[in-house]
Amino acid sequence: MTTTPLSPTQRTTIGRGRNRMVEDRAELHRLLDDALIAHLGVVVGGHPVVLPVAFAVDLDGPDEDGTLYVHGSVAAGWLRGAADTTVCVTVTELDGLVAARSAFHHSMNYRSAVVIGTARIVEDPVERRHALGLTVDHMIPGRDATLREPTRKELAATAVLAVPLHEASMKARAEGPVDDAEDIEAGVWGGVIPVGRVFGAVVPDADATGPVPADVVRRARAR
Amino acid sequence: MTTTPLSPTQRTTIGRGRNRMVEDRAELHRLLDDALIAHLGVVVGGHPVVLPVAFAVDLDGPDEDGTLYVHGSVAAGWLRGAADTTVCVTVTELDGLVAARSAFHHSMNYRSAVVIGTARIVEDPVERRHALGLTVDHMIPGRDATLREPTRKELAATAVLAVPLHEASMKARAEGPVDDAEDIEAGVWGGVIPVGRVFGAVVPDADATGPVPADVVRRARAR
Repeated sequence: MTTTPLSPTQRTTIGRGRNRMVEDRAELHRLLDDALIAHLGVVVGGHPVVLPVAFAVDLDGPDEDGTLYVHGSVAAGWLRGAADTTVCVTVTELDGLVAARSAFHHSMNYRSAVVIGTARIVEDPVERRHALGLTVDHMIPGRDATLREPTRKELAATAVLAVPLHEASMKARAEGPVDDAEDIEAGVWGGVIPVGRVFGAVVPDADATGPVPADVVRRARAR
Repeated sequence: MTTTPLSPTQRTTIGRGRNRMVEDRAELHRLLDDALIAHLGVVVGGHPVVLPVAFAVDLDGPDEDGTLYVHGSVAAGWLRGAADTTVCVTVTELDGLVAARSAFHHSMNYRSAVVIGTARIVEDPVERRHALGLTVDHMIPGRDATLREPTRKELAATAVLAVPLHEASMKARAEGPVDDAEDIEAGVWGGVIPVGRVFGAVVPDADATGPVPADVVRRARAR
């Protein structure tokens, strides 16, 4: 695996808000670890379509700087349509609401990554099996190893899109409001409401027997 | 305001997973209330770009079925480039991780809306002021009325994109794992880990004086 700095190309170079630009690829990897869904943009019929998808990352995948896998169904038209076209995968975590002293300066604290690349349909069943396992483990770390092997039929019905992680950019905001001096001097209040994700108590299926598996318990206790 | 059922056009008709399709526009309105960010897809240089944005909804806005406002900076190139083109605004809330009895049936509980329409740059300063207020109130309900009026300069630096809410579709999943009978009979465990959003304790700015405003307290206590 190579570790090209982020924003390696013109189209992943951040224009506005360069002060929010993140260059360290390790920050991208942390964001991709934290996030549970991505938004995949494809062009369909000449216009953009954005769909939420489950995803996983293989930093030792076949592409320079690692591979991002997007999971779908072979029946999904957008997936077939995206093959060999340029797609955009965006991953965003909201970290806070920034209550500024004026409407204009209201903002959000967030981390967001934009990955642009040519989508490849994963044809090799071994790589597809690997990507499916990574996707399950991304949701619930350690879970894939506790499950039976996918059948040949299941793997045939699983479609996976691979996007190189090479062309990626990232922005982050993690601070209080940036207000005008007059509003601060006028004594107007400003601050941040932190936002996070919480996992609730596990809901076993009606037909489930036995204790909740350790991997599920660990995930439900994590943030 | 009219209330066209969801998925009114071919390109907003749900292909795969029709059992997850939501037709009731009130469900869409609830999702748009709950969500804090949207993902805007635009076509730039022939490929899709997906960016996270703050947004607001005006059900009494100028468009049939209401107007979705996306907030940006006049300096942002994507916003200017999106004017009068077809864009896609997708809003997703993750509600649960579905731990099935096989890797193949792992899934997520979610609500997701896809809005496709022609983006209009809001030129009228009165409509832009209105959209800015709605965006602030969408983040922190009631806050806009507590703040000073935006200056003419601030309004000139604010760019707002309006997208009609008419062409919208929505999907939702809210159930336990859908497993194969053999895996259930084999006694494998299955269930759901609920996922939600949590607001943390308010962090006043270093220069902030006085009590935390009531609207901020209410938001931080809500889910």
